[in-house]
Amino acid sequence: MFQIASSETFMDGQVIFAEGANGDWMYVVESGEVEISKNVDGRRIVVETFYPGEIFGEMAYIDKMPRSATATAKGTTEVGIIDRQIFDTEYNKLSADFQQMLRTVVIRLRRTTMKLLQTLKESGT
Amino acid sequence: MFQIASSETFMDGQVIFAEGANGDWMYVVESGEVEISKNVDGRRIVVETFYPGEIFGEMAYIDKMPRSATATAKGTTEVGIIDRQIFDTEYNKLSADFQQMLRTVVIRLRRTTMKLLQTLKESGT
Repeated sequence: MFQIASSETFMDGQVIFAEGANGDWMYVVESGEVEISKNVDGRRIVVETFYPGEIFGEMAYIDKMPRSATATAKGTTEVGIIDRQIFDTEYNKLSADFQQMLRTVVIRLRRTTMKLLQTLKESGT
Repeated sequence: MFQIASSETFMDGQVIFAEGANGDWMYVVESGEVEISKNVDGRRIVVETFYPGEIFGEMAYIDKMPRSATATAKGTTEVGIIDRQIFDTEYNKLSADFQQMLRTVVIRLRRTTMKLLQTLKESGT
């Protein structure tokens, strides 16, 4: 469904993007799996796993903040890089209010994920 | 900043919208505070508190699902109902891909909030 600019293949364990890095490309899983993980006091905690057809990387796309988590291939994984131009054209046409509303959702998602990890850590799960 | 269609005043403890209800208006806090809470096994857990200038209710606006949490006034609170028409016009102009990307973020926020509450419950916090 999404327009793909190019595809890339990652081997098991290869990092697609790293927590804290800059970059705001969005991706779609074409085959394989992508694990989204965060480092909490040196421990790698998997937050989500994405499967073919699912997109990821959209948080940094919307709020232009560094990557909040690391994306790693699980098994040989092919990801499509979503064509930026189409999205950029649409995003730039949105009013300041609408853009702010979208950033609000992403900031809440970042914050809720942090709270979840903090709670997981404290509960020793 | 947001265009307000009308304002409404709620007394302390009054519900602005309830978890599970339909409705997709977005609001902005004008004065007072708004508590966002979820019912977990009969216990009311406050997920977030919003202050003047912050918007809320945008999740149901984007994904058209029932309200995932209850919004309650804390103290006498005035909220502005955001003018729908302006947002609707913009939203309807977005491509199916862009809309799907936005729904994805909201679905992730709903899911992460559920995981957080589940973890809080299990850890007995």
